[in-house]
Amino acid sequence: MSRTIYLNGTYMPEEEATVSIFDRGFVMGDAVYEVTCVLDGKLTEFDGHMARLERSLKELEIVCDITREEWLEIHRKLIELNGVEEGGVYLQVSRGTAGDRDFHYPPAGTPPTVVLYTQSKPGLVNDPKADKGIKVISVPDLRWHRRDIKTVQLLYASMAKMAAEKAGKDDAWFVEDGYVTEGSSNNCYIVKGGKIITRDLSHDILHGITRGSVLKMAKEAQMEIEERPFTIDEAQAADEAFYTSASAFVMPIVEVDGVVLGDGKPGPVSKRLREIYIDESRKSAI
Amino acid sequence: MSRTIYLNGTYMPEEEATVSIFDRGFVMGDAVYEVTCVLDGKLTEFDGHMARLERSLKELEIVCDITREEWLEIHRKLIELNGVEEGGVYLQVSRGTAGDRDFHYPPAGTPPTVVLYTQSKPGLVNDPKADKGIKVISVPDLRWHRRDIKTVQLLYASMAKMAAEKAGKDDAWFVEDGYVTEGSSNNCYIVKGGKIITRDLSHDILHGITRGSVLKMAKEAQMEIEERPFTIDEAQAADEAFYTSASAFVMPIVEVDGVVLGDGKPGPVSKRLREIYIDESRKSAI
Repeated sequence: MSRTIYLNGTYMPEEEATVSIFDRGFVMGDAVYEVTCVLDGKLTEFDGHMARLERSLKELEIVCDITREEWLEIHRKLIELNGVEEGGVYLQVSRGTAGDRDFHYPPAGTPPTVVLYTQSKPGLVNDPKADKGIKVISVPDLRWHRRDIKTVQLLYASMAKMAAEKAGKDDAWFVEDGYVTEGSSNNCYIVKGGKIITRDLSHDILHGITRGSVLKMAKEAQMEIEERPFTIDEAQAADEAFYTSASAFVMPIVEVDGVVLGDGKPGPVSKRLREIYIDESRKSAI
Repeated sequence: MSRTIYLNGTYMPEEEATVSIFDRGFVMGDAVYEVTCVLDGKLTEFDGHMARLERSLKELEIVCDITREEWLEIHRKLIELNGVEEGGVYLQVSRGTAGDRDFHYPPAGTPPTVVLYTQSKPGLVNDPKADKGIKVISVPDLRWHRRDIKTVQLLYASMAKMAAEKAGKDDAWFVEDGYVTEGSSNNCYIVKGGKIITRDLSHDILHGITRGSVLKMAKEAQMEIEERPFTIDEAQAADEAFYTSASAFVMPIVEVDGVVLGDGKPGPVSKRLREIYIDESRKSAI
């Protein structure tokens, strides 16, 4: 069944939704995005995603005058029109185009291109992968250095996921200067002696909305947290590991570069945080 | 007047030329491009650009079965239809889409998205900037680390050009680990004591088609060449500097980060190489 999507103020069938070949999202990777998770037909962490979207737009000086209330209305309408119970809403804003390709930004007043669509993914919460845990490989982090801005320049992340698949694993961790930065589309954590270790915020990693919430919940649950970079060696010697992302919540990791962590099953910290996070997300969804 | 462009096998007015909102060029920066210069209505360095295109596609495992003869036919037809005398032909191939956004590559057999269009730029050869020389600033090189693959992930290059403009200058040089990598959309050179110094080829810079030809011509003209990285300090102490690109040929640089080079006028090496290059390009254009 064809989805109804939102494009520049209009709701339309996905097959009709196209953008100019001159759109800067297409010719320059000049666009930002967000994916907000949907549980029970409701939006989780909506304010967090919209705050990050506003920040990304501001960092790139892309002017988009859609208000948070309007974003919410569009998200909700798409969820309703497409009958989404579990899944996500993808939102992309590009700098638009002045009608030709140019390295220079288009003149002020050029409207951005705004696209939103739903992705229905029943089974997100009861993902069997979360019961078994996933396996990761490491790859050099060759991405640009403003990973805190959520741009669509995702080619290398995509290449890394394909490399993982080719290796028969589930995901890839990026390593830079000897330390893990993050996963291909998620933030990474290891647990050692009960302590949760995850890289501190900087331009090197995405400021994960799920990351922020999970760390807050972990603190409230009296767990010890250390925000600092860690190495692959450290990860391989850890008791457990996991990643966080908007659509996978807290995902246990049981193998890093061929080395099995602990007893090879999702650890208690990962499992507990996943439970708490999904529970809290459900409660606060709007 | 509206251009006629080429999109996936069809020639059409540019206003009608659109791509799916799910196209990986739009949602992932997963596309490569080339710009071939047009002089006297003919293509310069065509084989070089097509060879690089083939390499970029191969590096990214994008399958596109258009032959070099077919590319040539499309280029020529667009030049003719749009009456281009001086300018360029832009070519972009994205990985296409399987109909939804996914980090995983679409299944084998998914057609790539192929777009070509002309940009008429009368006055390329007699650009007054080449007589005066241009001014550059330096910015940190924050791009991804496979700059030898000509992808559309150009946001940072675009940001750098805007930073130069904001500073009242013409272009930006990228600096990484203390050394100049390249310009925002060109390869850079300095000249000291008659010797031309330019960064050696690696994954750190684009393998410029114009770069290759200019170095070959310089060698034939008995000029001394040293391929190695150089610093901003070295550039500021140089006798002259220039950049090369498909559409600006050889462009003299007379100021680097506020420091005027030599007497502030385009140097003899830059001027001579520009002359030779334009001459030769004209002669070998097809």
